[in-house]
Amino acid sequence: MHGGAVQIEIINTGSELLLGNVQNTHGAWLGRELFRLGLRVARQTTIPDGVVIEQTLAEAVRRSDVVIVTGGLGPTSDDITREATAAVLGCVLIEDEAALRSLEAFFATRKKVMAPTNRKQAQAPVGADILPNGNGTAPGIYVPPRLNPIRPCAIFLLPGPPRELYPMFFAEVEPRLRALAGVAPDRGMVELKFTGVGESDFHQAIDERLAQVEGLEYGYCARISEVDLRLIGHEAATAQGRAIAMEVFAAQLISEGGASLESVVLEKLRHAGLTLATAESCTGGLVASRLTDVAGSSEVFTHGWVTYANRAKIEQLGVEEAALQQWGAVSEVVAVQMAEGALRRSGADVAVSVTGIAGPGGGSAEKPVGTAWLALARKGKPTVAEKVFHLRDRNGFKKAASQSVLDLIRRHGVDAS
Amino acid sequence: MHGGAVQIEIINTGSELLLGNVQNTHGAWLGRELFRLGLRVARQTTIPDGVVIEQTLAEAVRRSDVVIVTGGLGPTSDDITREATAAVLGCVLIEDEAALRSLEAFFATRKKVMAPTNRKQAQAPVGADILPNGNGTAPGIYVPPRLNPIRPCAIFLLPGPPRELYPMFFAEVEPRLRALAGVAPDRGMVELKFTGVGESDFHQAIDERLAQVEGLEYGYCARISEVDLRLIGHEAATAQGRAIAMEVFAAQLISEGGASLESVVLEKLRHAGLTLATAESCTGGLVASRLTDVAGSSEVFTHGWVTYANRAKIEQLGVEEAALQQWGAVSEVVAVQMAEGALRRSGADVAVSVTGIAGPGGGSAEKPVGTAWLALARKGKPTVAEKVFHLRDRNGFKKAASQSVLDLIRRHGVDAS
Repeated sequence: MHGGAVQIEIINTGSELLLGNVQNTHGAWLGRELFRLGLRVARQTTIPDGVVIEQTLAEAVRRSDVVIVTGGLGPTSDDITREATAAVLGCVLIEDEAALRSLEAFFATRKKVMAPTNRKQAQAPVGADILPNGNGTAPGIYVPPRLNPIRPCAIFLLPGPPRELYPMFFAEVEPRLRALAGVAPDRGMVELKFTGVGESDFHQAIDERLAQVEGLEYGYCARISEVDLRLIGHEAATAQGRAIAMEVFAAQLISEGGASLESVVLEKLRHAGLTLATAESCTGGLVASRLTDVAGSSEVFTHGWVTYANRAKIEQLGVEEAALQQWGAVSEVVAVQMAEGALRRSGADVAVSVTGIAGPGGGSAEKPVGTAWLALARKGKPTVAEKVFHLRDRNGFKKAASQSVLDLIRRHGVDAS
Repeated sequence: MHGGAVQIEIINTGSELLLGNVQNTHGAWLGRELFRLGLRVARQTTIPDGVVIEQTLAEAVRRSDVVIVTGGLGPTSDDITREATAAVLGCVLIEDEAALRSLEAFFATRKKVMAPTNRKQAQAPVGADILPNGNGTAPGIYVPPRLNPIRPCAIFLLPGPPRELYPMFFAEVEPRLRALAGVAPDRGMVELKFTGVGESDFHQAIDERLAQVEGLEYGYCARISEVDLRLIGHEAATAQGRAIAMEVFAAQLISEGGASLESVVLEKLRHAGLTLATAESCTGGLVASRLTDVAGSSEVFTHGWVTYANRAKIEQLGVEEAALQQWGAVSEVVAVQMAEGALRRSGADVAVSVTGIAGPGGGSAEKPVGTAWLALARKGKPTVAEKVFHLRDRNGFKKAASQSVLDLIRRHGVDAS
């Protein structure tokens, strides 16, 4: 087996995944983690709990090098992934002493009595590895290729709940997959998060150069007003890819490694010892809500206004009625007065404002739906204002406009100007 | 074929679904819509674009009564679902005159030139139905069971993009599935949305009685502080199920048919001619943001404060410093003063407040993380206050606490007391 040639298949068991009550997020999560290792999923199958796992697994091991099964390791009679695997391998399940002790300890530390049905969770096919589960009762199981009488196909049986699956993947599955597939030890992923620039800008500006870096794979993950660039390969390749991206887009970089724009902005302000106030109209509190999603935001963020009505802008932020009449609520003048009013009334060091037209109603030829004015006021410094345009549905507009506001803080909240 | 006995399989094609960049939402969406018809998905498979569709489809038609394929109907060389289906059926593709004209019209109305590669999108296996696509270039295809030489298995080929898939499902797929599976014409789904009550309360209070209603299937979909009860069956059965649920939980009902709590609350206030202001601490603007997600909310919602710092509560809402010192920010007294301050300063008819401990820090033995006080003040009426406790992670707490605030408005915003 080697790198891209390894056939990997995922089987997710769980009747609830097929009824539409629960979204199957395992497929995408595992796909992303395997891609990071240079491995591609050839097929993903979702099946109900129960007997169908045996036939599905038998088919999968006949055509794949690695099969990863999630779910069906619980204590109930529907949880038969273990039994089905033994049947496919033509072997018996034996109780693992260490796994049983670990199960008993799990219940003991929680001061609960272990039900007799839990005992089967300590069973595994003869010769298989038990994968410890620090976050639940079901240990995982690894069947190495040599135990498989059909073909040298490796089988991983993993628990369904994400809080159990994810840590077990990193601790137990990834090292074995690296060894199985001959993944270079320095192979890894660099993830760069950008804003204020679209996926097509990356395509045009750097795709060709990235494609020429030997041993580099890359991909984009675009969300509203945000693009992640994922660089995958050995260290030298990802470093070269990173340099190419930064040469063109350094000014748009939010973070390396996944930190959100709101957490980056708060950290910048906190580091500079500055406090922040927000004055929102069209985003309706979303800027404040995103900031307060971050633990510890109260050190920086002190005051927020959602001045949805014009009267609120006048009374709460001191916007002049004449300015509203002359320029309209969605204007540079009003955005500036909102930010400066918020700065003054909060006593914060930095204040941002946003006023725009979220739609679906309220647009005009001159100010169509999607228009927004932003401003950033700072103690003792000139106020900065910007106009943006985000033509999206109402929620997409709110998200994109809040992103623009946070990015305005990132760019101008702490600068020396 | 009949009802629950029909074997249905879904095949989603798309390499991007296996790399983890894009979540496969089709599986869950189709699962839910089929469940509504009393049909259960027996297997869902995701495969990459390209040749593997032929073998996957061949396997599926051998074991199923209905196979639904999404994706692979585009104009590129990777889009070969049509060709693979013809190969499985052992028939040829022919160009459909009407489909070609409709394709040409699609481009003409958009003033675009149709590329020669688009022409293959008008092809279908001999005898198959073309399913019109009002929202894209790729028509769907229906192969009735009698055309299938392997087994009487029906095949639906549907476009991948949700905005094309969903309308085509309702217009073209559902009627054919109803006929194929003998779904009663009055079979349907009633969806009731509740808040302030957990899934386990439903289990305890009404599960047994629901299970006794003939011809009724039901299920719960639980989110943070919200439970949907889905009642599925013929009209008499769903009506009976609805009556059982309402007998116990009428006071907790948000809506029938899916309307969100925020939209229900806004409509109630709008109908009564009342305006609303919000004063938030621990929810950090999320209440305002949820309200302003609803188009037209500006008719009702006028002022929002996010008084994160104590100083903001004092300056902006008139909370007494002595009250903060004596009772702490998370207290009934402060919640009441926040709501009454917001009422007074906004001039709105109704004002709500919330102050609590989102965590992870800031908790104490007396007021642990998860504690929140809410209040609702109304012109000329006594203020109502409530204490809630939501032990969740930071984001879960914000969501649950915002739900409690909206529910307080639902229950007390417009009442006669």
